[in-house]
Amino acid sequence: MREVAVIGIGQTPIEEQWDKSLKELAGEAALAALHDAGLERVDSIFVGNMMSGSANHQQHLGTQIADWVGMRFAEAAHIESACSSGAAAFRAALIAVSSGAVDAALAVGAEKMSDSPSDEITSELATAADFDFEAEIGLSFVAINALAMRRYMFEHGWKKEDFAPFSINAHANGAHNPYARFRSAITEQDYFKAAMVADPISVMDAAGMGDGAAAVVLVPAEYLRAAPGARIIRVAASAAATDTIALASRKEPTWLSAAEKSSRAAYAQAGVEPKDIDVFEAHDAFSIMAALSLEASGFAERGQGPRLALDGEIRPTGRVPIATRGGLKARGHPVGATGMYQIVEVIQQLRGEATGSQVDGAQIGMAQNIGGSGSNIITHILRAG
Amino acid sequence: MREVAVIGIGQTPIEEQWDKSLKELAGEAALAALHDAGLERVDSIFVGNMMSGSANHQQHLGTQIADWVGMRFAEAAHIESACSSGAAAFRAALIAVSSGAVDAALAVGAEKMSDSPSDEITSELATAADFDFEAEIGLSFVAINALAMRRYMFEHGWKKEDFAPFSINAHANGAHNPYARFRSAITEQDYFKAAMVADPISVMDAAGMGDGAAAVVLVPAEYLRAAPGARIIRVAASAAATDTIALASRKEPTWLSAAEKSSRAAYAQAGVEPKDIDVFEAHDAFSIMAALSLEASGFAERGQGPRLALDGEIRPTGRVPIATRGGLKARGHPVGATGMYQIVEVIQQLRGEATGSQVDGAQIGMAQNIGGSGSNIITHILRAG
Repeated sequence: MREVAVIGIGQTPIEEQWDKSLKELAGEAALAALHDAGLERVDSIFVGNMMSGSANHQQHLGTQIADWVGMRFAEAAHIESACSSGAAAFRAALIAVSSGAVDAALAVGAEKMSDSPSDEITSELATAADFDFEAEIGLSFVAINALAMRRYMFEHGWKKEDFAPFSINAHANGAHNPYARFRSAITEQDYFKAAMVADPISVMDAAGMGDGAAAVVLVPAEYLRAAPGARIIRVAASAAATDTIALASRKEPTWLSAAEKSSRAAYAQAGVEPKDIDVFEAHDAFSIMAALSLEASGFAERGQGPRLALDGEIRPTGRVPIATRGGLKARGHPVGATGMYQIVEVIQQLRGEATGSQVDGAQIGMAQNIGGSGSNIITHILRAG
Repeated sequence: MREVAVIGIGQTPIEEQWDKSLKELAGEAALAALHDAGLERVDSIFVGNMMSGSANHQQHLGTQIADWVGMRFAEAAHIESACSSGAAAFRAALIAVSSGAVDAALAVGAEKMSDSPSDEITSELATAADFDFEAEIGLSFVAINALAMRRYMFEHGWKKEDFAPFSINAHANGAHNPYARFRSAITEQDYFKAAMVADPISVMDAAGMGDGAAAVVLVPAEYLRAAPGARIIRVAASAAATDTIALASRKEPTWLSAAEKSSRAAYAQAGVEPKDIDVFEAHDAFSIMAALSLEASGFAERGQGPRLALDGEIRPTGRVPIATRGGLKARGHPVGATGMYQIVEVIQQLRGEATGSQVDGAQIGMAQNIGGSGSNIITHILRAG
């Protein structure tokens, strides 16, 4: 397998984008990434998206994006694994380039949720859960996570307010990110008075939806030897693991076994340990998920994720900076695009371009994208230089 | 890149499967393939499916199938490129194994169309076309192909009845396939009197829908050296190419440029020419598509696809046997599963297991899967021994 480098990144702001279609958003991010890479063409395009078939009446999105960005004849495919579709597309592009089958690939994550009426989008999001055993009985995706959070609070003795630092940190960082949907800091009071969505998850525990796209260009690292001045970001590890799709099927619903498996495999591939990770873009779709990710990925003891947050260790100056550009919470969570935003943000950190929330001297970054309620987890480690 | 072999195949009958859910169909094919391979686990599962999100209220299908077949912690992803989703999943599995990232992979194609009401399924199928420029103006997917067939007949002087042999050959072969949806031969009279769907496409020019799943297991070919008695089927080539998603955007709407690109790349990889192909599982979703595929893949001169059929050369005893197990026309076309059925059927031929329509001494087979109206075409060449 060839070592692979990311030589271009692109993203759109996340908001309700009423004046742009899904393909226009995807195209904007893709062309920005190509421009950043200094490339005009790639061999293959992998598009991560969860629900264009229902929300935008458009399947076959790989082909449509390839056509839209003028990449006729390139290979194109659409990859979907619910909210981890973005990282799944990145991993497909990575494997294609590392295998030698392809010399340059574009990975795009794109989602346009505003096209669906708000009652329908809740049903569409529930297709990430098990239809037969979860969605069918009326569990929305937020409700499933609320059950996990309630159980976790019971098991480990945390109160709801102990989760406040996750949201406060995300919004503090998102305020510096011009692409983030929510660009203002919040206070503890804002967290405490936030409207409840599915008890104990309030709007300040849940990532906001949005429309957006992010993209990266991947090439074999060996091609870059001739350009010593280039800011080379190498992919040091990629590992994916699944768990039962239904939360209730797990022996321990408050432990992310798939995060444990995929992060351990990634650490082994990269030859690093959790303490070596300078930036960790965790999948904080809900504050409970941020806590569970920190624990299963080896940054905190079991049940002690909130402790790390309360101690300030998840801030850009802390031991395990997460949500450094706002995370899913403040940047926004256009579901199939999120995994690609995480990778783009890690790369911004490794390039030293994370203005306002730069982690000093960041050299090794990790992005972890979660599909479903912890049922498909993909971890990537990237390294500068 | 490591050479890859297919060591297990599985499939379900194609019909209206009211007593089985999508995951049960996919699981049945997957477990059959694992049993055939003599394996209990794989590292990764790639599921090709077009529209489970809308037709079955279930996205995240890779994870669900991995869970359903007891493959907890395995990697899983869902790949979609409309009607070429099956071959796209096979190609993803192939690249993962050939790269060395994965040692054993399962590729599954599955689609359950009967769950959607018939008026909705037409809209869902149209998501394979360009929503903005085709579906939005009321063009169904059959209508787009009818425009192509009408134009082709005008350009090359063929009459509708000249396409009869495509349908007659498919049904004659499908009669011997226990997994085919339509298992009775048809006559020229049946073809002539068939009800029109979108002039000039009648029901005898169009593949029937259906519910079904097919699966294969892939491993590095080098792992099989120790088992000299095994029927080894090697993957000799894999190539994918796209074209504009909208038919009207092409300079030549009756020439499949993406088939030309992908088949030429595949021939080069395998070191073969069209004359070396013993079996060609073409994507005969419509009889016009069979003709266009034969031409763009180098088996017939431009405009002469129907000639090959009229001369009997597409039969199992002919020069270019197609639809040898019924093709899309008679086997049925559960859209996201079709590409995997094609590969399974090529392997049946190379193993000498295509009872009733066996091509004598078949050693090299080709499967070509088409997504959209020729906009995403994936060609695989497989070789016995």
